[in-house]
Amino acid sequence: MEKCEFCSLTELDKKYLLYENKFWYLFLADRQDYPGRCILVCKRHCAGIADLGKDEWLSLKEVMTGAENLLKAVLKADAFNWTCLMNNAYKNEKPNPHIHFHLRPRYSKPVNIGGIQFVDEKFGHHYDNKLPLLGDNAARELFEMLVANIGEHF
Amino acid sequence: MEKCEFCSLTELDKKYLLYENKFWYLFLADRQDYPGRCILVCKRHCAGIADLGKDEWLSLKEVMTGAENLLKAVLKADAFNWTCLMNNAYKNEKPNPHIHFHLRPRYSKPVNIGGIQFVDEKFGHHYDNKLPLLGDNAARELFEMLVANIGEHF
Repeated sequence: MEKCEFCSLTELDKKYLLYENKFWYLFLADRQDYPGRCILVCKRHCAGIADLGKDEWLSLKEVMTGAENLLKAVLKADAFNWTCLMNNAYKNEKPNPHIHFHLRPRYSKPVNIGGIQFVDEKFGHHYDNKLPLLGDNAARELFEMLVANIGEHF
Repeated sequence: MEKCEFCSLTELDKKYLLYENKFWYLFLADRQDYPGRCILVCKRHCAGIADLGKDEWLSLKEVMTGAENLLKAVLKADAFNWTCLMNNAYKNEKPNPHIHFHLRPRYSKPVNIGGIQFVDEKFGHHYDNKLPLLGDNAARELFEMLVANIGEHF
């Protein structure tokens, strides 16, 4: 069985933890291609949507809503692309998926973060999987901006 | 305001309707790149996850689970890529999104439908947006196979 990366998160892995409740972690993703990209991870090792309990499922919607509202307020995100894929787990011969969701905010207008301008050139179209990433300084600045506004949305 | 394509579905649009309940339609997608690809559409005009009611949200999980189980049973799907994007709505100046989810089943082994073999060459990786589509005859055969097994999973 593949070792589960989400069941062994270190403090370093949690450096961009935005919010947590009984069931879910919400992280600003390490992969900041779309500024404000987040990853929402179940605290329990759970393989997929079908296996989530009712309380986990109800809480999921609350955290999704909070994340969207936070990104609307702080970054003026216009739309949200949610995905639940777990493809990585299936690179292994004995897949051991752990449910998580990716959230890519989408922007009709340019976004400025840490002196860098991001233009969502494919707004209205499928997200681009090969965008360059925000640097560490801009990502840290973005994280601090989001954390400062968490209280209003969760 | 953009006219909502999902609020004006014709009988032709519903030709691949697999299942419906009070809140949701489950269609086999017209776009059969990944065999068994489905689209799950809210019956009510609702903009996104945040706006779904509790009953709609609870029902969504049941329909998602039924769809996965159906595709596991009939096509031996190994994994499921769910997306909730609504990008098309944002091509319009006054976006009017209607919540829907795409389900792409993923396959570790070749799948045979209507005499055509499908190989999921990127299994374990992000789905490919540019695959060729199954022809109408194979899609119709697939629809009939799925419909014949609906009763066990919903």
